[in-house]
Amino acid sequence: MLRIAMAQVNATVGDLAGNADKIVEWTRRAAQRGARLIVFPEMMLTGYPVEDLALRTSFVEASINALRSVAERLATEGLGGVAVVTGYLDRRPGLAPRTGLPAGAPLDAAALLYNGRVVITTAKHHLPNYGVFDEYRYFVPGNTLPVFRMPAGKDAGGAPGEGIDVAIAICEDLWQEGGPVAVTRQAGASLLVVPNASPYERGKDDVRLALCVRCAGEAGAALAYANLIGGQDELVFDGGSLLVTADGGVLARGPQFDEALIVNDLDLPGTDGPITDEGDPVDAGDGTVITIRHIELEPVDGPGLPPEATEDPQGPFWPSLPDPEEVYGALVLGVRDYVRKNGFRSVILGLSGGIDSALTATIAADAVGPDNVYTVLMPSRYSSDHSVGDAEELVKRQGLHSVTVPIRSMVDAFETELAPARFPPTGLPAENLQARVRGVILMGLSNAAGHLVLTTGNKSELATGYSTLYGDSAGGYGPIKDVLKTLVWELARWRNDQAVARGESPPIPENSITKPPSAELAPGQKDTDSLPDYEVLDALLDDYVEKDMGAEQLIAAGHDPDLVQRVIRLVDLAEYKRRQYPPGPKITQKNFGRDRRLPITNAWRERLPGR
Amino acid sequence: MLRIAMAQVNATVGDLAGNADKIVEWTRRAAQRGARLIVFPEMMLTGYPVEDLALRTSFVEASINALRSVAERLATEGLGGVAVVTGYLDRRPGLAPRTGLPAGAPLDAAALLYNGRVVITTAKHHLPNYGVFDEYRYFVPGNTLPVFRMPAGKDAGGAPGEGIDVAIAICEDLWQEGGPVAVTRQAGASLLVVPNASPYERGKDDVRLALCVRCAGEAGAALAYANLIGGQDELVFDGGSLLVTADGGVLARGPQFDEALIVNDLDLPGTDGPITDEGDPVDAGDGTVITIRHIELEPVDGPGLPPEATEDPQGPFWPSLPDPEEVYGALVLGVRDYVRKNGFRSVILGLSGGIDSALTATIAADAVGPDNVYTVLMPSRYSSDHSVGDAEELVKRQGLHSVTVPIRSMVDAFETELAPARFPPTGLPAENLQARVRGVILMGLSNAAGHLVLTTGNKSELATGYSTLYGDSAGGYGPIKDVLKTLVWELARWRNDQAVARGESPPIPENSITKPPSAELAPGQKDTDSLPDYEVLDALLDDYVEKDMGAEQLIAAGHDPDLVQRVIRLVDLAEYKRRQYPPGPKITQKNFGRDRRLPITNAWRERLPGR
Repeated sequence: MLRIAMAQVNATVGDLAGNADKIVEWTRRAAQRGARLIVFPEMMLTGYPVEDLALRTSFVEASINALRSVAERLATEGLGGVAVVTGYLDRRPGLAPRTGLPAGAPLDAAALLYNGRVVITTAKHHLPNYGVFDEYRYFVPGNTLPVFRMPAGKDAGGAPGEGIDVAIAICEDLWQEGGPVAVTRQAGASLLVVPNASPYERGKDDVRLALCVRCAGEAGAALAYANLIGGQDELVFDGGSLLVTADGGVLARGPQFDEALIVNDLDLPGTDGPITDEGDPVDAGDGTVITIRHIELEPVDGPGLPPEATEDPQGPFWPSLPDPEEVYGALVLGVRDYVRKNGFRSVILGLSGGIDSALTATIAADAVGPDNVYTVLMPSRYSSDHSVGDAEELVKRQGLHSVTVPIRSMVDAFETELAPARFPPTGLPAENLQARVRGVILMGLSNAAGHLVLTTGNKSELATGYSTLYGDSAGGYGPIKDVLKTLVWELARWRNDQAVARGESPPIPENSITKPPSAELAPGQKDTDSLPDYEVLDALLDDYVEKDMGAEQLIAAGHDPDLVQRVIRLVDLAEYKRRQYPPGPKITQKNFGRDRRLPITNAWRERLPGR
Repeated sequence: MLRIAMAQVNATVGDLAGNADKIVEWTRRAAQRGARLIVFPEMMLTGYPVEDLALRTSFVEASINALRSVAERLATEGLGGVAVVTGYLDRRPGLAPRTGLPAGAPLDAAALLYNGRVVITTAKHHLPNYGVFDEYRYFVPGNTLPVFRMPAGKDAGGAPGEGIDVAIAICEDLWQEGGPVAVTRQAGASLLVVPNASPYERGKDDVRLALCVRCAGEAGAALAYANLIGGQDELVFDGGSLLVTADGGVLARGPQFDEALIVNDLDLPGTDGPITDEGDPVDAGDGTVITIRHIELEPVDGPGLPPEATEDPQGPFWPSLPDPEEVYGALVLGVRDYVRKNGFRSVILGLSGGIDSALTATIAADAVGPDNVYTVLMPSRYSSDHSVGDAEELVKRQGLHSVTVPIRSMVDAFETELAPARFPPTGLPAENLQARVRGVILMGLSNAAGHLVLTTGNKSELATGYSTLYGDSAGGYGPIKDVLKTLVWELARWRNDQAVARGESPPIPENSITKPPSAELAPGQKDTDSLPDYEVLDALLDDYVEKDMGAEQLIAAGHDPDLVQRVIRLVDLAEYKRRQYPPGPKITQKNFGRDRRLPITNAWRERLPGR
């Protein structure tokens, strides 16, 4: 029997000291609960993704040194007897620089720390280079599978001399065919532990579960999948760590969007057999060879099973969040960590009375607390009474800070000074001007008081370019930049319903949810003057952006040909705006960030069949 | 004897029809000069780089169809007897979708068009995935080397039945070890033709020359290196195509930054030997195997050698541009193509009287003509008389459009409305406010008249964050975003000297070059209040940004430790600003674009030794 812990923690990119402290702290907690093995996420020590920091020698050195001193600290603090598997950044020595080789030959590595030492290390074999991942840029692939034999003395309930063989793979090694999973079976390991940094996408936790079950079967071993949590720029790591048996039984499932220590007892076949495959290169089934490296751990005086029960009142099965609660959780965590990890304590945003800014404010209040949310009402000559009223009602319901700054005098000053240069008093330039005056106000108040500006644009706007560069798109972080308008409404309704279910009053005024959307930049303006109904638009955007369908496919899928032509053109032409949009939490495959890279200068226009 | 042409042309990304026209047009020109073989750049038909367009099925289909119809058009127009090698986008059939495989298995391909048909195709074997390149994301690697035997009848001066064997490789295949170059020697080809899309970096043309000479030696064949020219977002392709003999003699060197047809006669060993290695997989010396594919071209009635001389008055040796003329040429081409290819005809920018905006305006005037350059003078209460005077003098010297829009009334309006919200009348927020009012003016005039806004910030500012988000950093394109301040001065002086040498008056007022730089956002402000001398700063930035040195290395290289600490911090903290900066022409390895990818949320700070 092996008591294993998975530490589903929130690492911060670049904070080697803070991340090292977490390794020690969570190992202590695991030891206190009697665990003999603890698994941390991928690149735990450096945070993930480090991007081009991986190519900086000084950073790689710092990671390697920090790993060594964590190993020593663990022993010093009486935790040397816990086997600690953690991700970190390493490099492969002995590779001469050459074109195409990432500078310094960095490795997305994992190490086993035990008895004060770095006992064995390995590196990710399959490097993802799609979606948001650029790992051929950053890393060289690993080509070993380490297998360590955990001592199974009387404490562990095993026969003397017997041990449990544990193999280590990393994240993408599960997702691609062949490689460490296949070799784990050849090595005869009983357990495969897998540090991960797998970012959130809507509904991905079910995909991961199926993946872990399949890989456990292929490896012929139990599988411990420890995932990171936390926000890092556009990525939100959602946790949802998993423990499955070799035959696909699910033993544990971690929470989403929260740190957690997941502790389980595993009944695993022990072995006292000799090691026969040491150092043999093994066909990895993917056109490469992998070398199995065995190591046997000596028993160390360490924590035995504690006398008291180790049951976790919450775990080991945390509830899996239904949609859209899951999405909302991702957005809140994304905002909270972007604010906190960038050294801010408060946010500021413009409130229009509309649903986008209302939802953004609510997410912000849930992320950093209402007392850290500053709102600005910036009515113009076109603002309706209900807009101001709805915004004020939102502020009151949630207890946010608020200030009103009418934009009329600034707009007038611009129009007066620009009139000789033939600036028109109405039309798109005049509409954009109002949005930009608001952007200047928010940025000014942000500079004056140190708040982070939140941008309130949604994905439907971002897709179609229905926004003003340096106007409503100004800001440091865009909480709903990956949320289509129809989902904005759904999230708002869900959040209100959730409040009611908890016996609280709904945070978002009903009128903000139900009224027809308008930018209020011209008299009587409605979104539907320029755009189709959002139900229709969002379905088309999902097919074009997320599913990458061409014009023929879109029409075959039932979209109106004229609309297809118009929307494709809008989306393609808005690329230059999106390129300057602030980051925001990613909840889909294509959030208009690094997951979708298109040229700005691009003469390609999808032709409709027969036109 | 083989007359070969290299078509160093300017393709546009996505403009399949326009690029196809260019293939036909330039093949006609080559035929008129008696060439029997013409080589176009990499991805000529689609433009380069197409980025995620490669993953869109409809785009790949369009490229394949366009290639086929170009082949037919060439024959229809009497050009079927010219062997045309051109780059295009293809896909590898028969690969089932799997994790890690680029969707649709796209190929960075090249084809031989002859006698109305696509005779043989191949694909790039070495995929670059560093710097600005992400080709593991977009492509699957090629694994064949095509060798076609050019008929060498009496027209070509060869013996009957004899031919010349020509192999095809693509761009990166030259830069990495093993692969097509090595296999070309095994195939016994006499000539290796190489379509390229190799972007400009300062001094790179000499690197390419050495590379071509080395590869020709390794291949045991003459080498024709046809490079793209033109601007594409941040990339500038500079041309400089090369023709070298197997023993390293240079026969031709194309111009930089201009289209050109480079025609040469090559004396190559013919062969009438049988093909013995057909279909054998050959060890490519890089851990892979490559299959050689032979094909023999039948003679086609086509253009013979024309009676008149084929001497090019300019070629085949165009002058190689010295620095900084070369840099200036890259900036001008980058601006011209960004404006033109995005459908603009004119640009607008703010003139401060300082050197950055003066140089930017001059580059713009050289790129699109002074009559298409609109300038805006936006004096504030802190603007000095000489600033306004210097700006006016620049306008007069170059014949630019200009309008003056004082910013005072708008700044006053903001300050009045924001005062109740505790917006301070001086300090950083007030300085940023002025810059943002200017940004709003430029964007407004751009919206009203359809000019592209040019941003005037230089690389030293961008590096240290010495700029205002949505203020001076607002715009569509930043011509000098990759130009350090010291190089800004050097370019300005060079441009003035060049004018004088041509007997023209210098375009840039001397005072703009010689006066101490100032943002003029506060009374008596100078750049040196906040930053060290630019000579000192730029040397440090070059080592930190371009050479990626760590703190210890920087100090060992002689930089002041306090300054190292301060500047590293400034550079690291400004990442969020750079992420929203407009694109601009790249002239170094790291222009703060896709060539340098760092997290915004990043707690890593280089520690100085002993601190």
